[in-house]
Amino acid sequence: MKTTKKIMLSESELPKQWYNIMADMPTQPQPMLNPQTRKPLLPQEMEDLFAKGLVEQEFSEKRWHDIPDEVLQLYKNYRPTPLVRAFGLEKALDTPAKIFFKNESISPVGSHKLNSALPQAYFNHIQGITRLTTETGAGQWGSAMSIACKHFGIELEVFMVKQSYEAKPYRKVVMKTYGSKVYASPSNITEYGRKVLAEDPDCRGSLGMAISEAVERAVTQPNTRYTLGSVLNHVLLHQTIIGLEAERQMEMAGEYPDKIIACFGGGSNFSGISFPFLRHKLTGGRSVELIAAEPAACPKLTKGVLEYDFGDSAGMTPLIPMYTLGHDFQPEQIHAAGLRYHGGGRIVSQLKKDGYINSYAIEQLEAFKAGILFAGAEGIIPAPESTHAIAATIREALKAKEAGRADVLLFNLSGHGLLDIPAYEEYL
Amino acid sequence: MKTTKKIMLSESELPKQWYNIMADMPTQPQPMLNPQTRKPLLPQEMEDLFAKGLVEQEFSEKRWHDIPDEVLQLYKNYRPTPLVRAFGLEKALDTPAKIFFKNESISPVGSHKLNSALPQAYFNHIQGITRLTTETGAGQWGSAMSIACKHFGIELEVFMVKQSYEAKPYRKVVMKTYGSKVYASPSNITEYGRKVLAEDPDCRGSLGMAISEAVERAVTQPNTRYTLGSVLNHVLLHQTIIGLEAERQMEMAGEYPDKIIACFGGGSNFSGISFPFLRHKLTGGRSVELIAAEPAACPKLTKGVLEYDFGDSAGMTPLIPMYTLGHDFQPEQIHAAGLRYHGGGRIVSQLKKDGYINSYAIEQLEAFKAGILFAGAEGIIPAPESTHAIAATIREALKAKEAGRADVLLFNLSGHGLLDIPAYEEYL
Repeated sequence: MKTTKKIMLSESELPKQWYNIMADMPTQPQPMLNPQTRKPLLPQEMEDLFAKGLVEQEFSEKRWHDIPDEVLQLYKNYRPTPLVRAFGLEKALDTPAKIFFKNESISPVGSHKLNSALPQAYFNHIQGITRLTTETGAGQWGSAMSIACKHFGIELEVFMVKQSYEAKPYRKVVMKTYGSKVYASPSNITEYGRKVLAEDPDCRGSLGMAISEAVERAVTQPNTRYTLGSVLNHVLLHQTIIGLEAERQMEMAGEYPDKIIACFGGGSNFSGISFPFLRHKLTGGRSVELIAAEPAACPKLTKGVLEYDFGDSAGMTPLIPMYTLGHDFQPEQIHAAGLRYHGGGRIVSQLKKDGYINSYAIEQLEAFKAGILFAGAEGIIPAPESTHAIAATIREALKAKEAGRADVLLFNLSGHGLLDIPAYEEYL
Repeated sequence: MKTTKKIMLSESELPKQWYNIMADMPTQPQPMLNPQTRKPLLPQEMEDLFAKGLVEQEFSEKRWHDIPDEVLQLYKNYRPTPLVRAFGLEKALDTPAKIFFKNESISPVGSHKLNSALPQAYFNHIQGITRLTTETGAGQWGSAMSIACKHFGIELEVFMVKQSYEAKPYRKVVMKTYGSKVYASPSNITEYGRKVLAEDPDCRGSLGMAISEAVERAVTQPNTRYTLGSVLNHVLLHQTIIGLEAERQMEMAGEYPDKIIACFGGGSNFSGISFPFLRHKLTGGRSVELIAAEPAACPKLTKGVLEYDFGDSAGMTPLIPMYTLGHDFQPEQIHAAGLRYHGGGRIVSQLKKDGYINSYAIEQLEAFKAGILFAGAEGIIPAPESTHAIAATIREALKAKEAGRADVLLFNLSGHGLLDIPAYEEYL
């Protein structure tokens, strides 16, 4: 145990650019479609909904994107994050595998979501936008946007899936502490929300519904735009800061991952940690296996089909080509609320189709068991979402043990679970 | 804002020794007394209650203590912690003061308490102790001991002040996740607890009562010892890791603090950050002002008297010479449960008497207001305890502004408030 446990980068080593995998994909994903015309969506058609700077990124095929200086300075509040060698977990599993994790839980909101919230707020701010809307499932994204908007003096309205709103009372207080307005979705402040409630007054909501409400609210209010915490290309782009740091840190550790593992909701933390490594494989360099850990209750990559679908329940978004369970899919009320999204996004779906991504569908019980084991071995109580990545990592570590192979495994600890304690209480 | 925001140390720069201020105090504190004989307490009289290694430290006057290698390795799970320049707070206050804070909130339990929990569990473990007891107010110490005991395979029983047990439901789940047993104190599993409940069935407990229960339980169970999270010399010793790191980090920033500020419950985080700096003043070096931020509801340093008093409510501990409000003092039910302790410990009390420590008694409202301001400016929601340090820092920063002085202020962010969200909810 004399080896370095945490591999740290200095602030000056913080990557200065995000990586856009679109530049290196062997097959470009199909375009998004305008649902009325069914013609490829044009950038200007998205600009009523998203800040221009973000729309540019969404359509960009340029490999490297400069991180704006103001965003870099804000990243320095919590980045670079540590890469940790999970000696405790290795010992608990008695495996020859070398397990590393990127600890994204140390951000002020406890997850990786801030990596995209900051640039999203920034690009809206420089365009003069004064109000944003968004949705949140587990509350991680809503909290991150709340900090980001507070910094730039932007008002934020968050539509929080009602089931989470009730099950995670602390989360909404966190968002309010930063000055945001938080509504349980479906709410009665949007037309869509009222329609849903009229049909089913007891409806406990879904991410798709919350997106519909936030989108409706954005397009019906003055000087307002919408923000999304996953799925879209520009979100994945921002999250590559995770993998770009991890790449340097693995180098410092003298290792290269054989397998990279992350939980999968809409793809933001998964893409963030894995794409910078995958780029080498795509450009003829070193190979790596990518494993998406989905909840068995919402297995879009493992059991979905690749087709055009809406990003929201009401069908207000463009049509997106993606592995989907259907935009009206209503997953069970699992604790990993951040993974309860029906689709996988354009880029991830194309890479999956082309054979670059494997996926596991993991039952909630296996995930929690893995989370408790990890908490005991490494001290950190993981977010229910992240427990899926841990469960998949444990599967791989045990495979390595069986084969007597010192596989190098890298997983993303996307967040801690301190605000998800009721879920653990139920499990215990 | 181009300046470095976080000042980081590498793992290899982690201090290898703790600093014992007893070696440099101009006046040695009075000894603890055996309450029966009223003679100075002997080390062996403490060994039924505490591990030998810890008793040795408690009575030691040696300046430097090697940190055991196994503890160092565990420190590396989260240490060194960042020193942060609070540019956001400076801007919000429009002050010429340079504000730095040590971010102890990034430990897996979210506070500095792990710094002493790990060595306490370690010294019990190497002595073959298999069960520990402790008390907890806010739950920070109990959570830290839970992780530490889980690592060393020691059973842990935590007596949690009933008011906190009820007000902070998440905290007990955290402790249980690591395998600890948690009792609301006063409980009916100790004689003292039953006595209190017989007199007042609705009693909501106090730290002093919880200590009495944990002590009784330790001395009446086989192969069991007791652990305390503050007040005692050995706890303060362990916590100096904070200030020793901060000393190097301030040097890297090219600054030296004019004032060091920390919240004050029993003195653990306060002493931890300040003693390594104070040692220079005590040995003829650079001056520094120390400010203890107490809650107005429990102002032992500001309004207490220096005299011999018990450490617990039942009068089971040795007599300790300290600024105290009386061991039967029942503070109001403020949210900063970790600061609701009646006494200040031997070392801090002597230093206070000798003029080395100033204190502020801060009202809860001022503290919360400071906490919300800090959350908006720096992104981190502070623990209710830490908001007192922030309030005192703001006072000093505004003084500096009035005087047009670029004072260098250093405060300790002892923990985050993510598990204390109900307190914020009430405030909002």
